[in-house]
Amino acid sequence: MHNKNDPAAKLRSIFYPQNVALLGASDDPNRVGFNIFSSLTGGGFKGNIYPIHPRLKAVLEHRVYSSLAALPEPVDLAVIALNERSTIAAIKECAEQGVPGAVCVAGGYRETSEAGIDLEKELLDTAQRCNVSIVGPNTLGFINNENGLNTTFYPMRLPVGNVSFISQSGGMGLDFICRAVDVGLGINKWIGAGNRTYFEFADYLSFLGEDAGTKVIGLYLEGTEDAARLVHVAGSLKKPVVVYKAGRSGEADFAAITHTGSMAGSHRVYEDVFRQFGIYSVGSMGELVTATKSLSIASLPQGSRIGLMTHTAGPSIVAADLLLEQGYTLPSLTPQTLAKVQKLTGPNPPFTLKNPLDVAGMGFMVDVYGQYLELMATDPNVDMVLAFFCHNANPHWPFPSTELVRVKELSGKPVVACYISSTAHLPAERVILERSGIPLYACPEEAAQAVLALIWAAGHLTNLEKGKSVKEETSR
Amino acid sequence: MHNKNDPAAKLRSIFYPQNVALLGASDDPNRVGFNIFSSLTGGGFKGNIYPIHPRLKAVLEHRVYSSLAALPEPVDLAVIALNERSTIAAIKECAEQGVPGAVCVAGGYRETSEAGIDLEKELLDTAQRCNVSIVGPNTLGFINNENGLNTTFYPMRLPVGNVSFISQSGGMGLDFICRAVDVGLGINKWIGAGNRTYFEFADYLSFLGEDAGTKVIGLYLEGTEDAARLVHVAGSLKKPVVVYKAGRSGEADFAAITHTGSMAGSHRVYEDVFRQFGIYSVGSMGELVTATKSLSIASLPQGSRIGLMTHTAGPSIVAADLLLEQGYTLPSLTPQTLAKVQKLTGPNPPFTLKNPLDVAGMGFMVDVYGQYLELMATDPNVDMVLAFFCHNANPHWPFPSTELVRVKELSGKPVVACYISSTAHLPAERVILERSGIPLYACPEEAAQAVLALIWAAGHLTNLEKGKSVKEETSR
Repeated sequence: MHNKNDPAAKLRSIFYPQNVALLGASDDPNRVGFNIFSSLTGGGFKGNIYPIHPRLKAVLEHRVYSSLAALPEPVDLAVIALNERSTIAAIKECAEQGVPGAVCVAGGYRETSEAGIDLEKELLDTAQRCNVSIVGPNTLGFINNENGLNTTFYPMRLPVGNVSFISQSGGMGLDFICRAVDVGLGINKWIGAGNRTYFEFADYLSFLGEDAGTKVIGLYLEGTEDAARLVHVAGSLKKPVVVYKAGRSGEADFAAITHTGSMAGSHRVYEDVFRQFGIYSVGSMGELVTATKSLSIASLPQGSRIGLMTHTAGPSIVAADLLLEQGYTLPSLTPQTLAKVQKLTGPNPPFTLKNPLDVAGMGFMVDVYGQYLELMATDPNVDMVLAFFCHNANPHWPFPSTELVRVKELSGKPVVACYISSTAHLPAERVILERSGIPLYACPEEAAQAVLALIWAAGHLTNLEKGKSVKEETSR
Repeated sequence: MHNKNDPAAKLRSIFYPQNVALLGASDDPNRVGFNIFSSLTGGGFKGNIYPIHPRLKAVLEHRVYSSLAALPEPVDLAVIALNERSTIAAIKECAEQGVPGAVCVAGGYRETSEAGIDLEKELLDTAQRCNVSIVGPNTLGFINNENGLNTTFYPMRLPVGNVSFISQSGGMGLDFICRAVDVGLGINKWIGAGNRTYFEFADYLSFLGEDAGTKVIGLYLEGTEDAARLVHVAGSLKKPVVVYKAGRSGEADFAAITHTGSMAGSHRVYEDVFRQFGIYSVGSMGELVTATKSLSIASLPQGSRIGLMTHTAGPSIVAADLLLEQGYTLPSLTPQTLAKVQKLTGPNPPFTLKNPLDVAGMGFMVDVYGQYLELMATDPNVDMVLAFFCHNANPHWPFPSTELVRVKELSGKPVVACYISSTAHLPAERVILERSGIPLYACPEEAAQAVLALIWAAGHLTNLEKGKSVKEETSR
């Protein structure tokens, strides 16, 4: 099915190996080689993990082998936790033993010195000559949350889902993971791209574009010499791509250069290019998590007319600011809907009949909240609903989660929930809502960002289906 | 000491009463009057709380009195949970019984209709004629976290601290509380300003400016007709004031008008005015919590030269972006410091000697991290340090909190911590760090915002001390 020379096919082989060897295993908890072994064996991966070290006998009660040649069966992925020079020798060893793919963890290449640039060329030449494809070097590696394979030196288990993430930085990649864990965002694949010596961002994007488990792609970017291919590939995937670009200022660029050996480009140039090519650009990792979460969970709206439902004005005002600043409008409800609202409320409603629909104190009662929500969501002027609710310790005023689910089902329109609440109260509601396709946020700014991402994706994917050139696309 | 006609003195009387009456007590858990009683009795307030209702006998096993006149002792605050018309009668009752202050919860005034505008005038006339000062109407009320007095219908207990908050919106005021609880921000006083019929923002600001328990003031603003006095008072307080202004767009303005009956002004005009007058303006509630937290906990730097210490480049690049975009520079370390760093590292350091100082994998070891941090913090080119660390499940690589505290103490310079971590791991570290004056954040964007707030406050308060006109001030 796949062309074996296709980068995406090579990456599929790396992410779905049968068995894995770790070159540079260690029994010292302060060494990377120990921590990677903990990750490899602790993530649920079903294949065999073979630690390799010339002299060591055992790591964490696993037998250590002296070399790839000494293994009892073939492996199809080598994780190489050796220094920058030994890594090159290890690639040759992989080739001799028929190991098609490797993760090269070591730094010390173009990001450090002139000598490092030469060494990285040697690594690439070796990999290409030997036909061993490599992730890295200078990377944490990757996590495939589908088969439980974690090649990083961060042992952890993550919520499983359909969002995959590519990071130019290990630290910001970890930041993504931490934010994702905090809000229950399900991760499919996590990729530390490192120096991108063999695979570029475009290759990882192609791979994830074809990957059945990936619905949404996030990308943290500092800079690349291959920006043209990146944006062409990202914008043409039939999946939303959300990018967070850092390294915007001169001195930050300098830091980026020293980090992964690439020049971070002008932020403004990137911004314009992202928009033209149909890539969703965000301004922080929090916003990236917010956007990928809504794209992961919610269905896409048929249009951009947003109904705001609340029992407290402030959060709806904050959300309206963000929506209106992006050029979207809050539609008026139809006279028919307003008549129904008035009928429900009585002749002298204690609130103004409009959008945002703020039903004030009455909204604390779940059934009342649900009745008004239903009227708003079924209004033909409304394409999707953003629903606000404030947590109160009074058990008579629970979260209206079951009503949100009911109204989402009967209206067939996307619903985004914003519960003004300490996050401690949210996990139980999140299960109810997000299982039913309603992403939950704890503040109005994030809820509005979630809505904006859905509207953008609906427009972008529709344009792609119509075969429009991505450059013709009107973006946010 | 205080002039009795001084709004600040009147507010002090309202926030520190001896005993409190609740007019409109209820035994129905769906009524506001029940929930306010829960709040009043559940917050730790030491005075007596008297529920009042003409017919009810008991609420939550407390005896209910038929009127203010029937109480066994004087009260000095009335919380009025009656409808908009009965509230006016209750103000007269307060005057007759010598109650000097009241919280008026009811909506239904200028925010709803023409008739409401007239009714609000009548309320104000009554209050002024009767010499009863009022918070509200159309408000959640207030929380004084110093004496445990919670007049809102949200029963809760909050972390106690030195940050006070004024909100034009109940919902966004709750959002502030929820975000504060999530990050352990200590609250002193929380004020729902409501329609500001009697006390304006400037009055609340004056009160908090004189309030010994308040070190930092946050303000959520949608719009006010009294903006000139607001900015004059806020900018002249010898405490930092952080404002989040919503209601920026036309339709959002419309929502704001219907909410608290005031016109939300042009965002750009407000922004410019805030800067000129020495008020710190932020773009989200999260950023307001971030800024007030750093101002609450950290000491102020002597200058704006920031040292970034890390063992992973990405987060320092993201933070550098935000700092450099605001015009600040990352100073070079002195040759003396660089020589010491090199001596510590050996002749061929595996990282570049610069600021950000990225010590790579070695930084996982707490003592090593602390040695480099000390060199950076004691460098005469550095006014304050932002220190990054990535959480790892390996117990050999704990957070370097004790080292951060040690270096902060010996250098005498402010330190801000950014731990890339799921928030679940942070409470224990927060205790160690924040007790010692080091605010802790979980992502680099927030950490940079925290640093920016400290630099701004240092400049602003220095200018005030020098007696500079606030309008001459150079702001962020």
